[in-house]
Amino acid sequence: MDSRLLRLREEIDAADSELVALLARRMEISRQIGEVKHDLGQPLYVPEREAALIAARREEAEAQGMSGDVIEDVLRRVMRESYQRQKHQGFRRTGDGQRNIVVVGGKGQLGSLFARWFALSDYPVVVIDKDNLDELAGAVEYAALVLISVPVSRTTEVIEALPELPSDCVLADLTSVKREPLAAMLVKHSGPVLGLHPMFGPSVPTLAKQTILVAPGRDATAAQWLLRQFEIWGTTIHELSAEQHDKAMSVIQVMRHLSTFVYGYHLAHEDIDLDELLNLSSPIYRLELLMVGRLFAQNPELYADIILNDQDQHRMIRRYLQRFTKLLDVIETEGREGFIREFRGVARWFGPHAGQFLKESVSLLQHADDTKR
Amino acid sequence: MDSRLLRLREEIDAADSELVALLARRMEISRQIGEVKHDLGQPLYVPEREAALIAARREEAEAQGMSGDVIEDVLRRVMRESYQRQKHQGFRRTGDGQRNIVVVGGKGQLGSLFARWFALSDYPVVVIDKDNLDELAGAVEYAALVLISVPVSRTTEVIEALPELPSDCVLADLTSVKREPLAAMLVKHSGPVLGLHPMFGPSVPTLAKQTILVAPGRDATAAQWLLRQFEIWGTTIHELSAEQHDKAMSVIQVMRHLSTFVYGYHLAHEDIDLDELLNLSSPIYRLELLMVGRLFAQNPELYADIILNDQDQHRMIRRYLQRFTKLLDVIETEGREGFIREFRGVARWFGPHAGQFLKESVSLLQHADDTKR
Repeated sequence: MDSRLLRLREEIDAADSELVALLARRMEISRQIGEVKHDLGQPLYVPEREAALIAARREEAEAQGMSGDVIEDVLRRVMRESYQRQKHQGFRRTGDGQRNIVVVGGKGQLGSLFARWFALSDYPVVVIDKDNLDELAGAVEYAALVLISVPVSRTTEVIEALPELPSDCVLADLTSVKREPLAAMLVKHSGPVLGLHPMFGPSVPTLAKQTILVAPGRDATAAQWLLRQFEIWGTTIHELSAEQHDKAMSVIQVMRHLSTFVYGYHLAHEDIDLDELLNLSSPIYRLELLMVGRLFAQNPELYADIILNDQDQHRMIRRYLQRFTKLLDVIETEGREGFIREFRGVARWFGPHAGQFLKESVSLLQHADDTKR
Repeated sequence: MDSRLLRLREEIDAADSELVALLARRMEISRQIGEVKHDLGQPLYVPEREAALIAARREEAEAQGMSGDVIEDVLRRVMRESYQRQKHQGFRRTGDGQRNIVVVGGKGQLGSLFARWFALSDYPVVVIDKDNLDELAGAVEYAALVLISVPVSRTTEVIEALPELPSDCVLADLTSVKREPLAAMLVKHSGPVLGLHPMFGPSVPTLAKQTILVAPGRDATAAQWLLRQFEIWGTTIHELSAEQHDKAMSVIQVMRHLSTFVYGYHLAHEDIDLDELLNLSSPIYRLELLMVGRLFAQNPELYADIILNDQDQHRMIRRYLQRFTKLLDVIETEGREGFIREFRGVARWFGPHAGQFLKESVSLLQHADDTKR
């Protein structure tokens, strides 16, 4: 190999070793910050501090002839790691440390995630599942929170079968629909009631920057300690009524899952070689294919629950099919002109978001390309 | 503010300033490597070197108690920047520097991207567009390559209207379908002919790691210099017949664009508040919504061309609609059981890819979360 090239490669390797050491040092400082914040009971994620820190480094980078985007991406990646490590240090507790947190269905993925985070915040956590249902009555006797985390098809019956709870105990659920469970909880329990829907899956490594939707049931004041706890974990709380929630979710979840299902179903029946398809895919098609294929690595029962849940959803699905048919008719009878007119109509509805989405997707694609070998 | 916290924040800021300086130094070394490689005519992107470099740093990071993933992500991000900067230094030329590269439609986005890259490699480039069609005959007289980059609906007529080309001149097009343009080029020109389909959009900042699909027409040997040039730019070449290409593309492009179009069309007609929808979206739904919305920031004429292009595609679209209807019938008549059975069928078709896609999407989502404020 050319000797100039060899020498330059050695320089790169030396710089990269320095980089490793520097990042290790930064993470150690972050760890210490986490400790101090834990002592002070301060939230881990402070958007203003993060924004100021990044702006200052961008400016420095640009002054040195480098793109601000690189340093911003690098810092965000390193900060993500620090947030994730934070959980090993635990989080300050906002509620009563003497009273149980009872997670019913706590061996499921989402239930065990919440059980783990309550334990990290030093609450006595009792996990109830099929195999230890007999412990439920004893566990709720001194409970500060009973959290229901069972499949949506079983939520109501599990709520109805609960023993009586202490009058100031918070009763809450994690189901992806809110009307029915909330109604059942309000009948069952006369104390504080909350419907919760975490907008993240069990695979998230940290709760920082994640969202929890909250549908208020009864006596919000008595449940404040719980919402504050979620905030200390780094989550954002978004409050809305159970009705608003369910309407929005049927649009977000049902439509998207269904159209993804149909798309996968069509591919599977078209006699296509998936490997060849992947070879030919541009980054953007590969990303779209990935968003379809990822569905089928998951549990069909979960999606059956979401899609088949109620009659409103069946009606919306039928409307979706009618629109599909109508759009094809427009395209076949009016051709190009009809296509462009309807396309522009949708573009108007998306408004400025469409351009923003396009911009964001470019950044995501570049990230996806980075890891391509 | 707590004095311990203040001191630690100062330490973070100092470490981050060091980071900026270190990355600036690394990019300068990369720039020098680019120069040497340019002198030697070596390709910029060497997968083995990249893999070895990353493996060594991962090991070092892990020895220092850090996750290997962080250093890998950081290095990939920094290397992307270096690849992008490379284009300012130019690329070694593999063809004849005395003969013209003529880009017909070279003021369009993709055409001007190629015109720019040929210029970076020191070819005399002539851009022909509507306003200087009269220069075409003179420009092709000494051309080594005539590259057609006009909308798919105009490709054939533009090819047919070309003046006679030198017998060893390569005639190629960049259209997203290949059968028709290739046939037209083979009739028009008796010398070397190639159908090209770049699997990337005009917004890519670098060609490193991008794919170009190549449908061979005639006299592949005489066009080798062109394919070698693409490789020096960092692209991967994937060869297939025009028939294979068009079949795969109708699946990849037509189906995906159409189902995205229908999904957006449905949302736009459902009387939904998009801002509220975005507030409620989990990262994964937001990403899916983004993949829908991004379509509508783009030119409808381009998509009309792709979707309305030929009758085979109309037939496939009808099959898609039939499958959609069938799946809904299965779900409505058989309920949960039918849903799960059909879901599992699709999962079998995706095979191990489904799990891989799910894994990749988790990494993408984390990246999307990093930039959330």
